Amino acid sequence: MYRKIDHIGIAVRSLDAALKTYSAGLGMQADHIEEVPEQKTRVALIPLGEARLQLLEAMEEDSPIGRFIAKRGEGLHHICIQVEDLEQTLLHLKEAGVRLIDEVPRRGAGNCLVAFIHPTSASGVLVELSQSSL
Amino acid sequence: MYRKIDHIGIAVRSLDAALKTYSAGLGMQADHIEEVPEQKTRVALIPLGEARLQLLEAMEEDSPIGRFIAKRGEGLHHICIQVEDLEQTLLHLKEAGVRLIDEVPRRGAGNCLVAFIHPTSASGVLVELSQSSL
Repeated sequence: MYRKIDHIGIAVRSLDAALKTYSAGLGMQADHIEEVPEQKTRVALIPLGEARLQLLEAMEEDSPIGRFIAKRGEGLHHICIQVEDLEQTLLHLKEAGVRLIDEVPRRGAGNCLVAFIHPTSASGVLVELSQSSL
Repeated sequence: MYRKIDHIGIAVRSLDAALKTYSAGLGMQADHIEEVPEQKTRVALIPLGEARLQLLEAMEEDSPIGRFIAKRGEGLHHICIQVEDLEQTLLHLKEAGVRLIDEVPRRGAGNCLVAFIHPTSASGVLVELSQSSL
């Protein structure tokens, strides 16, 4: 069902500042920058083994990342796990009583299908599931 | 320098409850449980691709995980990145002006060498570096 960690989402105040911190300081380079208007975020991806770090900047304060930053500051926001078949996975999870934010897959960054699990069903962790679109 | 995400650390109130949440709900099984007395934590590892989810329970309130839980509740605590040569990596990072919690490697869970980078040098993320011991 679960393939691998696809990415780790990190909420940042300024994508430009964070990219500088990660490149000049930690020696990590982003290979992709994208706007995701549906989530009102600007996103940079830093490859790391089979996964990526995903830096997330809010394009508006009234957005998921904007509200997270206002409440908790910068830092770890969510993890994304790649699955083989997202629709099947969501059915399994629903049967197991898992609380889903998205009961059906929707379009995410990088043209993937995604759905979120509520943190109450994962020990406080916001878990995104993704499936590469065919 | 960086190989892959080794694990994602998740602070939980009760390891037994979290293991049940992750197995019965999410269908994820831990393959290893360990006490790390130096960190006053009990740790369970759930394999996921080349990485692991690491569930962390405080053995005492006055411990890094105990204080985190008291302040922020359950959830994402740190990420751990595997490096080839930890001592060399720490030298590079120090030269680049990165703020290190550990300037020299120390012994961590699973008999690895580990060192932590301060969150101020990684956009609010607590980053652990680890090297498999030889």
